Amino acid sequence: MDQYHELSDATMEVMLDSLENVLDEEANPDYEVDYSSGVLTLRLGENGTYVINKQPPNKQIWLSSPTSGPKRYDYVPEKDQWIYLREGRSLGQLLSEELGSIFKRDVAVKIDKVTDCI
Amino acid sequence: MDQYHELSDATMEVMLDSLENVLDEEANPDYEVDYSSGVLTLRLGENGTYVINKQPPNKQIWLSSPTSGPKRYDYVPEKDQWIYLREGRSLGQLLSEELGSIFKRDVAVKIDKVTDCI
Repeated sequence: MDQYHELSDATMEVMLDSLENVLDEEANPDYEVDYSSGVLTLRLGENGTYVINKQPPNKQIWLSSPTSGPKRYDYVPEKDQWIYLREGRSLGQLLSEELGSIFKRDVAVKIDKVTDCI
Repeated sequence: MDQYHELSDATMEVMLDSLENVLDEEANPDYEVDYSSGVLTLRLGENGTYVINKQPPNKQIWLSSPTSGPKRYDYVPEKDQWIYLREGRSLGQLLSEELGSIFKRDVAVKIDKVTDCI
């Protein structure tokens, strides 16, 4: 398996675990997270739907946020993170901040060191 | 059920049927289309992944294309279609053109009159 798939698969799995924990704390029956074949869907009822998916041709992870729209993340080896290069911020940071705003509490979606997740 | 959900649900179902027919003709085991709770995923192996999802807060349908990136579609009653307002083109048009390019043949993803699909 090439490095892109190894790193992105590990990231998707860690992100799924983290989001499942976040939703467990919310205990809202309208909320659900689902992961299948490279596409993670986080449904937050009337708050909208997040979609995060592997995009193999670009070796990226793409995110679509109901709050802030689309972003494309590249793996940056120096930071060992998936970074939205235009802003220099990571996938975990964005999710933590936006979900914190939606749920009105501190949320930590931890995808700190990608290679630690493999 | 409000009009947005009625129109968008009908569109997603018709689009799914149409894409299933397109993939049947391709008969490529790496390709698959899947629809679950408002999120349609069209995986085309190394050509990348399309994600098309309902976005209820905006009353839109959002598309993420591995070829052309993200677009947001609004329902335009006068045309009875989901239109990307910046370009004036419909969701069906975009999919037909891009899949035609990928599969190197004429492809018709027909979502002509949304209210006829309900």
